[in-house]
Formats: sequence, C-alpha cells, structure tokens
Amino acid sequence: MTESSRAVVLFSGGLDSVTTLAIAGREQGCECYALTLDYGQRHRAEIRAAEHLARQYGARDHVVVRVDLGHLGGSALTDPAWDLPRGGEGPSGIPVTYVPARNTVFLALALGWAETLEARRIFIGVNAIDYSGYPDCRPAFIEAFGHLAKLATKAGIEGRPIRIEAPLLHWTKMEIIRKGLGLGVDYAGTVSCYDADENGRACGTCDACRIRRRGFSDAGIPDPTRYR
Amino acid sequence: MTESSRAVVLFSGGLDSVTTLAIAGREQGCECYALTLDYGQRHRAEIRAAEHLARQYGARDHVVVRVDLGHLGGSALTDPAWDLPRGGEGPSGIPVTYVPARNTVFLALALGWAETLEARRIFIGVNAIDYSGYPDCRPAFIEAFGHLAKLATKAGIEGRPIRIEAPLLHWTKMEIIRKGLGLGVDYAGTVSCYDADENGRACGTCDACRIRRRGFSDAGIPDPTRYR
Repeated sequence: MTESSRAVVLFSGGLDSVTTLAIAGREQGCECYALTLDYGQRHRAEIRAAEHLARQYGARDHVVVRVDLGHLGGSALTDPAWDLPRGGEGPSGIPVTYVPARNTVFLALALGWAETLEARRIFIGVNAIDYSGYPDCRPAFIEAFGHLAKLATKAGIEGRPIRIEAPLLHWTKMEIIRKGLGLGVDYAGTVSCYDADENGRACGTCDACRIRRRGFSDAGIPDPTRYR
Repeated sequence: MTESSRAVVLFSGGLDSVTTLAIAGREQGCECYALTLDYGQRHRAEIRAAEHLARQYGARDHVVVRVDLGHLGGSALTDPAWDLPRGGEGPSGIPVTYVPARNTVFLALALGWAETLEARRIFIGVNAIDYSGYPDCRPAFIEAFGHLAKLATKAGIEGRPIRIEAPLLHWTKMEIIRKGLGLGVDYAGTVSCYDADENGRACGTCDACRIRRRGFSDAGIPDPTRYR
C-alpha cells in the first residue's frame, strides 16, 4: 500500500460516516485511518459503536481523541442545560444542536493526523442536503478548508497537499443509504440519534432520527434502526 | 462592555502570547477571554504559568481545554521518543518541534468559543520572523483561516464575521519585547522553553530559549528568564 492511498476518515459511527468509510475503503481502495472525536456528547453510545464499526468496515487503525468542546459551550449536544429539538425538522435557521466550529475542529485534528501518517486525503461525511442547516456542512466551507490545508501543513508547502473529500456532500439521505447498501453496509449497527441510550438505541423523535427515518422511507427500504 | 469588544486570546503563557494579551486588553481595550490548549506537552509548567498570567494581565475568563494531540503523533513536543533540538537555530526547513496542524486546531477551538461568546475577534501570537519555520505561522495561513472563519460559523453567515488578529506577525522578537515592556509586561513570569522544569525554569539551550534570549539581547534589555 503506497503512502498516497492512505486516508484519514472522520468517523462518528453514524449512518453518514459509515457510508463514507465504505466509500473510502471498499470503493476507492484507500488504506483508512478512522478518527473519532469525543467532544463531550451527552452519551457514550456513538463512541462505542464507532469502535466496533471501524473494525467491521476494515479501518487499518482507529483513534478516539478527546476534545472538551463542552468547556466552550454553545450547543444542546454538549450542554445538558439545553433541550434537544424534537418538534419536527427544527426551526428555520440554525438549530440548537449546532456545535460552534465543530467541523473546523474535526478537520483540523484530521489534518494533523493525516500529516503524521503522510496520508493524502481526508474523508468527511458532511452533507449539504439533509443537514439540519449547519453552516459548516456547506460546499463553500469544505472548499475553504481545502485551501487552508494547503497552507497549514509541511506536506502542503512541499507540494503534496492533503485533499478534503466529502463524497456525500450533494446527496440526499436516500442516495446515501442506497450507496451504502450497494457497498454492503449494514445500517442496523449505526447510531445517528442525538440522544441514544446506553445500548445505542435511538429515541426516534430528535431531528437526526427523523431525517434518518425519512431516508429509509424515501429509499423504499425497511428502517433497520433499533429504537427504544 | 459591548459584545463587539470581546476577544478570544490564544494564550500559552509564553512571551508572545502574554504580549498579545496585553495588546488586546491594555492597548486595544478588548474584554479578553484567554484560551489555553493542553495538548499533551512534555511538562505542565507552561499551563500553570498561563493560569497565573491570564489573571495577572486582566483576562475576564480563562479556560484550559485538553486536546490529546499526542494520540496523533508526529512531533518532538508531544512524543517523548523524539529528541528536542538543541544544536542552534535548528536545521533548515521545518524542525521536529513542529506539531502537525497545531495552529489550525488552536484557531478552530478559539473560533468555537468566540462564536459562543459572540466575540468578534480572535488574537493569536504567531510570528513570521523569529518563528522556527513552522508553516502555520505564515501570513498566508492566517489569511486563509480568516476566510474559513467567515464560512464556518453562524456569526459569519449572519454578517458578523469573527476576525483573526495576529499583531506580532511581522515583528522581530526584539520588537515584540519592546512593545510588551511599553505595555507593562513583566517577562520574568513567562515560560517560552520547550523543556521547562516543574518550577517553570528554562533549559536555556532549546530553540525557543535561544530565540528568546537573542530577543532580549537585541533589545538591549537584561534577560529576566529564570534558567535552571
């Protein structure tokens, strides 16, 4: 395996990141290094799921890095004092589950690991369609980070820039699910819920659950999610 | 104090960041929120110094966020297996003390906090002159991050972008020291050394110590650093 086939894959263990890992590894033949960020979420279920799933989908290595975003506040996902949105697709504008600068932090850490590994690609499962309205899930953000990556690293300065790849960027949830099923992904093991219980079972009512459920429905596929 | 006078200051407790905090608070009148990143350095002295100095120079709040960059490898500053450079100004090119994507990670975390605080400015004490050759201390990097910050945040989308300010960017170490002295900074309490002991006393031989020592010498000012 050559250096240039190495890729860092940002990997939460949710539907989007498992699909992204399958694309990077099974479809594009990359040697994948999965990176999970533990940023003080409300529950540990998604981290445990990520550990299992990274192995299942062939990651060469998997690292969990703790970053205490909870100290910096500002989100219902890291601050127990905030209520999670359950009323539907969320208010217009940016919902309370937005974690300030989260994808900037995630991509920055992936960039550091990619440089250490001499990897040439970073995969991130962001999506600009069914994305809950987060500013850092838009194509312009991904493009700006790619430009930054060229300037921020030794590899970039030396003419071997690390590319940011967001294969799901323009797909609907339905298209993401169909791609994953075509690559042999079993979505029963993935956790997307903002409020999963200790066994990784989903609430079925938060925004993430509703978007996911509709994706399976639109794809005409039975929803394999384990609800509590 | 209005929202717009709030600033997040990246604050290691070294000479450059103390000068930057003094510029942001004493000279520019910002309400300063100091952010120290504990990224698995070899010693704890600079974090303890930062806690004390943030109070001393008037920060409204000070937060220490742990980010385990050591898990991602690639630097003599986070990996005890690597030797610290002591041979002089370091080899040509990028030295082993370079931490991959460090300033990208730091600015990303500062961006998240700035958004939560509704701060409009982030100060970082990077310097492109006496900077040991790190890629993420160059003006083009700072400019690219400023562009990213506009796209990455709710504030940026809503027309209130968070600006990145690097007041030391084009100054020599001598000019930085003179500016700080003019603002009443006492450099005896600052730790720049890559390998300070448990009491914050400097080694006097690493690259950071050599650059700092020469700065005082060039400024014609007695070096107040506590060496061991």
